[in-house]
Amino acid sequence: MQKYFIPKEKLKLGIIDTDDAFHITSVMRCHIGDEILVSDCENTYNCKITSLKNDLVTFEIMYQEIGNKELPVFVSIFQGYPKGDKMEEIIKHGVELGAYEFYPTIMKRSVFKLEEKKKESKLARFNKISKEAAEQSFRQYVPQVCDIPYLKTIDFSKYDKKILCFEEAYKNGDLYNFKTIISSLKKDDKIAIVIGPEGGIDKTEYDYLLSLGFIPASLGPRILRTETAVFYCLSSISYEMELKKSE
Amino acid sequence: MQKYFIPKEKLKLGIIDTDDAFHITSVMRCHIGDEILVSDCENTYNCKITSLKNDLVTFEIMYQEIGNKELPVFVSIFQGYPKGDKMEEIIKHGVELGAYEFYPTIMKRSVFKLEEKKKESKLARFNKISKEAAEQSFRQYVPQVCDIPYLKTIDFSKYDKKILCFEEAYKNGDLYNFKTIISSLKKDDKIAIVIGPEGGIDKTEYDYLLSLGFIPASLGPRILRTETAVFYCLSSISYEMELKKSE
Repeated sequence: MQKYFIPKEKLKLGIIDTDDAFHITSVMRCHIGDEILVSDCENTYNCKITSLKNDLVTFEIMYQEIGNKELPVFVSIFQGYPKGDKMEEIIKHGVELGAYEFYPTIMKRSVFKLEEKKKESKLARFNKISKEAAEQSFRQYVPQVCDIPYLKTIDFSKYDKKILCFEEAYKNGDLYNFKTIISSLKKDDKIAIVIGPEGGIDKTEYDYLLSLGFIPASLGPRILRTETAVFYCLSSISYEMELKKSE
Repeated sequence: MQKYFIPKEKLKLGIIDTDDAFHITSVMRCHIGDEILVSDCENTYNCKITSLKNDLVTFEIMYQEIGNKELPVFVSIFQGYPKGDKMEEIIKHGVELGAYEFYPTIMKRSVFKLEEKKKESKLARFNKISKEAAEQSFRQYVPQVCDIPYLKTIDFSKYDKKILCFEEAYKNGDLYNFKTIISSLKKDDKIAIVIGPEGGIDKTEYDYLLSLGFIPASLGPRILRTETAVFYCLSSISYEMELKKSE
């Protein structure tokens, strides 16, 4: 069943408009009486469609969905701005894997040049991808792509745990730091994960982040592409915290 | 340092030709005296370039690289053939994350239609992507994309553990099966992981796989895209088996 995130006031009125209405009528080809999931980012409801037009769908709420779909911790991804459209891939899969928010971060080795006037449209596109991925993966919350900051402008003080993904850590013998941190997380912890762009983290960035309390951590013996590192981190957190083993 | 996989006989002769020679000269723009890693899929050597042409590079071996970069278990991915070029994305990141081999498998809900005459060229392309990803991630072994089989023609009898990724398992209360299996793996175990295409596993395929001893397993409360499921499985296996925590 397809899920749609809509503003609270439209949920109260029982209406879906704009792109989502088009999606229901023309992409999903729904009929009157079909069921959809509708969420205001707080609660999710199982709803029945009562009328259909390309730009306006009305529905009535049948019952509230229960069960938590969110990671038990808040993971903020500070992704060194990568080449091409990799940032979109990172957001798409990162949302499915439970990230709380994303900061495409301009680091020394980012090839990307920020044009201020294009920033808003970039962010709008990123947030559209996030919303679609949240609907597809049945998230209760739409992760935000908050800003495209420079590394030095970010305030990391609110985070409980700070991880710097650092492939060189493996050469220095680290296979401990990542799992030690992840296995010690508690519900509602706020975690900052910094991942360098393709060329990695610059030495001055490394020193700066360590001075802020970041722990450099290896993600195993193989060298991961920048986008793969995000998937590894989030999958591991889910595996550690959401899955259980039978005794 | 860039890594190249070459046949054993060329390693003995100290030569690299074809695409790899072009890559060294024209993409990496190496010079005489630069170091590269060369592997015959068994051992990896740190080598120095002794001469350079676009179609022939010669090198001498300096010393053998040590340290294992391979997952301690053999993970075979039976991926329901997905739409578009997702299979390439799965191979690319799956190789980085340590998969042992891939079978792009034609399942009932695969939209893909196999044209026999295109099979060889598809497999050649998949294996090229695998080789490049293995070089990039410093694997010691190039995972093979072995065949494009139909599900019913596959012999699963050699596997120690058989996992069917199945999102419906979560609705039935399963958050246990995946972690219970992964946390019980032993070194050199052979694991078959079956993942459905976009539309998921068909009921008859589900029954068939269960009759072969497959365990249906949820990968957490969020619905993952077919390509994301592979990343989740492999990352979790690495996290469980390769990373350690300090006591």
